[in-house]
Amino acid sequence: MDPYVIQMNGKSPLPSVLDVPVNIGGRSSMPGKAKGRKARWSVKPSEMSKNTFNPIRAIVDSMKVKPNPDKTMISLSIGDPTVFGNLPTDPEVIQAMKDALDSGKYNGYAPSIGYLSSREEIASYYHCPEAPLEAKDVILTSGCSQAIELCLAVLANPGQNILVPRPGFSLYRTLAESMGIEIKLYNLLPEKSWEIDLKQLESLIDEKTACLIVNNPSNPCGSVFSRSHLQKILAVAARQCVPILADEIYGDMVFSDSKFEPLATLSSNVPILSCGGLAKRWLVPGWRLGWILIHDRRDIFGNEIRDGLVKLSQRILGPCTIVQGALKSILRRTPQEFYHNTLSFLKSNADLCYGALAAIPGLRPVRPSGAMYLMVEIEMEHFPEFENDVDFTERLVAEQSVHCLPATCFEYPNFFRVVITVPEVMMLEACSRIQEFCEQHYHCAEGSQEECDK
Amino acid sequence: MDPYVIQMNGKSPLPSVLDVPVNIGGRSSMPGKAKGRKARWSVKPSEMSKNTFNPIRAIVDSMKVKPNPDKTMISLSIGDPTVFGNLPTDPEVIQAMKDALDSGKYNGYAPSIGYLSSREEIASYYHCPEAPLEAKDVILTSGCSQAIELCLAVLANPGQNILVPRPGFSLYRTLAESMGIEIKLYNLLPEKSWEIDLKQLESLIDEKTACLIVNNPSNPCGSVFSRSHLQKILAVAARQCVPILADEIYGDMVFSDSKFEPLATLSSNVPILSCGGLAKRWLVPGWRLGWILIHDRRDIFGNEIRDGLVKLSQRILGPCTIVQGALKSILRRTPQEFYHNTLSFLKSNADLCYGALAAIPGLRPVRPSGAMYLMVEIEMEHFPEFENDVDFTERLVAEQSVHCLPATCFEYPNFFRVVITVPEVMMLEACSRIQEFCEQHYHCAEGSQEECDK
Ligand SMILES: Cc1ncc(COP(=O)(O)O)c(C=O)c1O
Ligand SMILES: Cc1ncc(COP(=O)(O)O)c(C=O)c1O
Repeated sequence: MDPYVIQMNGKSPLPSVLDVPVNIGGRSSMPGKAKGRKARWSVKPSEMSKNTFNPIRAIVDSMKVKPNPDKTMISLSIGDPTVFGNLPTDPEVIQAMKDALDSGKYNGYAPSIGYLSSREEIASYYHCPEAPLEAKDVILTSGCSQAIELCLAVLANPGQNILVPRPGFSLYRTLAESMGIEIKLYNLLPEKSWEIDLKQLESLIDEKTACLIVNNPSNPCGSVFSRSHLQKILAVAARQCVPILADEIYGDMVFSDSKFEPLATLSSNVPILSCGGLAKRWLVPGWRLGWILIHDRRDIFGNEIRDGLVKLSQRILGPCTIVQGALKSILRRTPQEFYHNTLSFLKSNADLCYGALAAIPGLRPVRPSGAMYLMVEIEMEHFPEFENDVDFTERLVAEQSVHCLPATCFEYPNFFRVVITVPEVMMLEACSRIQEFCEQHYHCAEGSQEECDK
Repeated sequence: MDPYVIQMNGKSPLPSVLDVPVNIGGRSSMPGKAKGRKARWSVKPSEMSKNTFNPIRAIVDSMKVKPNPDKTMISLSIGDPTVFGNLPTDPEVIQAMKDALDSGKYNGYAPSIGYLSSREEIASYYHCPEAPLEAKDVILTSGCSQAIELCLAVLANPGQNILVPRPGFSLYRTLAESMGIEIKLYNLLPEKSWEIDLKQLESLIDEKTACLIVNNPSNPCGSVFSRSHLQKILAVAARQCVPILADEIYGDMVFSDSKFEPLATLSSNVPILSCGGLAKRWLVPGWRLGWILIHDRRDIFGNEIRDGLVKLSQRILGPCTIVQGALKSILRRTPQEFYHNTLSFLKSNADLCYGALAAIPGLRPVRPSGAMYLMVEIEMEHFPEFENDVDFTERLVAEQSVHCLPATCFEYPNFFRVVITVPEVMMLEACSRIQEFCEQHYHCAEGSQEECDK
C-alpha cells in the first residue's frame, strides 16, 4: 500500500483540508511522488529518543555557572559513593571478582536472566519466611536501572500511568515517558519524615494505573518508612488492586535507630516486584549488577508476568558474567564490619551535616535515617535575591564552589539535596561555606523582625 | 477526567452502540462504577513484552525431543565460543581485568556512554584515514545487543520499517517487533556466497524505511562481503537515502583468504552506525561490552541523532566499568598470535566440516569465509520422511545426539546452521554422525536414479 494515500472511502470523517501534502513519519511527502524513493537525506531521531529526558542532566547541564576560582570545588551532587575514595568496597568483593576471572567459568553467555547459581544465591540471601524466594523468583539485570526498566516495560502499556513519589528519583519519569507511560506524582510529606500522603496517593489511582513505585529508603530524602507506614501503603495497594514496584536499592542501608523492612515481608496479597542491586550497599555502582525479586504468593502476576520479564530480558542479555560469577562470594564473604562501617560513617556525616545546616538561618534540613542523602528546605522568602532552588544552588557554586542538586531535579522546588558520602572534612567545609553564603544573602522576611534577631 | 465517560458531545461520529460496557486499558468497566476503583486484581503483561519474541528460543524450546541415550550429546547450536573450553580468551585480557580491579578507579558510575578514556581507546583502535573516529563518535553499550537496540531505537519510530537480511540474526526481529517497528526481509543468495540480492533489497525500500541492517561477516552464514559488493550496497543506500546499521560484531574475524572491510571505510556519504563488541573476537561474550561507532562525515545524522543516542544510553547506564577500565590493555596488549590462532583454528574446523558435509548425499554446505558458522542446505526432496529443517534437526538429536539449529530460526527453511567453534574431535565425530543419519534417511528423488548411484 502506498503510504502517501490518505484513505477517503466515504466513511472517514476527515475534513478535505487534509488532502494536501502531509507529514508522514516525520518526512514531508508530495502526493504523486514516485513510490519508494526518498528525494534526499532526512534522518530524524525517533519520538522515543526525543521523549527520553533526564531532568538531572537537563537542569545540571544548563547550569552554565563557573565555580569560584579561589575555592576548591566541593561536589555534594553526585549519588556515587566512590568518587572521593573514602568509601572503597571490601577487599573480599575485589577478590571474588578475581576468583571469578581465574576460574575461567564465567566468560560465556549466561542465560538472559542470569546464571541459575547466581540467582540461587540472591534468592537464599533475601529469602525469609514471610517472603520466601527461590531462584525462579530472581532476574539479574544490568543495574537496578534496568530492573526498573524491565518492571515498567512488563507492567505498563503506553497510555497507562504509574504512581511516582515527589520528591523522587528522576529515572522513573525518564523511563516511563520514553515508553509513553504517564506518571502521576504522589506527595511525600517533609513534616512527617517524608511519609506518603496516602489520601492524595489513593486519589490518583484510576483504571489506567499500572503500578505504584515505592522507594524505600529514599533517594533524595534519606528517609526510611516505618513498618506501620508500609502496612498502610500496602493497604492502599490491596484495596485498589495496584501492584507495587519496590525500589529497594538502598535496602539495609539504614542508621542504627531505624529498621529496614523489605516491603514484601509485610504483605501476603499484594504482588510486588522488588528491585535492588550491588551498586549502593557494596559500593560498586559501575559494575551494573541489579536484580528483580518477584513476590507473588497469591499468583496474581502469574506466569504471564514472569514470562514477560524473561522475554524482555532477552533483548540485551543481562549483566556482566564476571560479576554474576562473583556474587556468591560477595554475598557470603563480605564481612559484617564492612556494612557496619559504611553505615556508621554515613550516620556520623548525616548528623554532622544536619546539625550544621539546622543552625543556619533560612535553611531547614530534614534529618535522614538511611541511604546517602539529606534534603534541605530553602526558606525562599528569606532569600529574595534568588528566584528558586536552581538559582540558589547556582549562586552557591559561583560564590562558594559548593555544588548541591536543586530539588527541582526531583520535582520538588525550594529544596536542595546534599550527598553525605563525602569525607568528613569536606562535609564540614561545605557546611561552613553554605553558612557563609546564607548569611550573606539572608534577608528578614517583611513583618517578622523577631526571626532576624535570632 | 473520568476515563469511563465516552465523550458524546455531538461532534463525535461514534455510533451509539458504543454506549455499553467497554474495555479500557485491557480492563472491563461498567458505566457508573465509582471512579478510580478496581474491583479485582488483573495484572496483564504489556503489549511490548508480548511482542518480544525470540524465534530461536521459541523454536528450540518447543523441540521436546530427547537425545539418544547411547551417544553423548554434541551441541553445534550455540553461538558461544567459550562453551567447550578449547577457545579461552588471552591471559592478557584476564590480566587487564585484574589490573582494572586493583586500580580501584573503575568502581563508580561512568558516564552513560562510557568513560572518555575508554572511548578514546576504541576510537583510536578503529580509526583509519578513510573513516576517522574520535571519542565523541563512540558509545559504549551493554554488549553489541544493546548497541543494536539503541541504534534502532534512535532511528526508527513505531510504524516505520527496517531492512533485515534473510537468513539473518534473529535479534533484529526481536528488537524491532518489540518496539513496533516492521521488518522487511531482503534475500542473501547462497549460490553467490550469500551476497545480497540488491535488486530485491532496493525494491523493499519505501518512505517508511528507517535503516538498512548489514551484517558482515555474517551470522548464520559465515560469509564475508567483498569490497565491490559492499560498494554496491552503499550505492543502494546512497541512492535511496537510507542510513545503515552495520553489525560488525564479527569484524576482523575472517579467514586468511578473505579480507574484512569495515563498511564505513568505503563510503564518504552514507551515514553509518557500526556496532561491535568484545564478545566474539576476544572470546568473552558474557562480559557484555559492545559499542556503536558513529560515521557521519556528511553530517546527515547531525547532532540530533548523536544526542538521541546519548539520551537513550541514560536509561540504563552502559556496560560494567571494570571491563571499560580494562579496554585499553585489552586492545593494546592482546598479542597478534591470539587473534591468529583463533582464526586458524576456525578456518581449519570450517574446512574440515565443509569437506565432510559436502561428501554427504543430500546435504549442500556453503563454504564460510569468516565468523564462526556454516550453513548447510538440506535437499529436502531426498529426505521425504522429514517435514522440514526443524523436523530434520530434531530427529538428528533423537538419533545421533547432535544438535544443530534449524535455519528456520534465521527465517531460512531447509537449511541448518553448524557452529564451528567446537574441538576438532567433536567436529569430526559430529560430521560422521550426521553422515550416518543422512545415509539412513536418504531416499532417491523420483526419476533421478543417477543421483542415487553416486
Ligand atoms: C532510588 C534509586 N533507584 C535506582 C537507582 C539506580 O541504581 P543502579 O545504579 O544500580 O542502576 C538509583 C541510583 O542512584 C537510585 O537512587
Ligand atoms: C550478528 C550478531 N550481532 C550481534 C550479536 C550480539 O552480540 P553481543 O553478545 O555482544 O550482544 C550476535 C551474537 O551472537 C551476533 O551473532
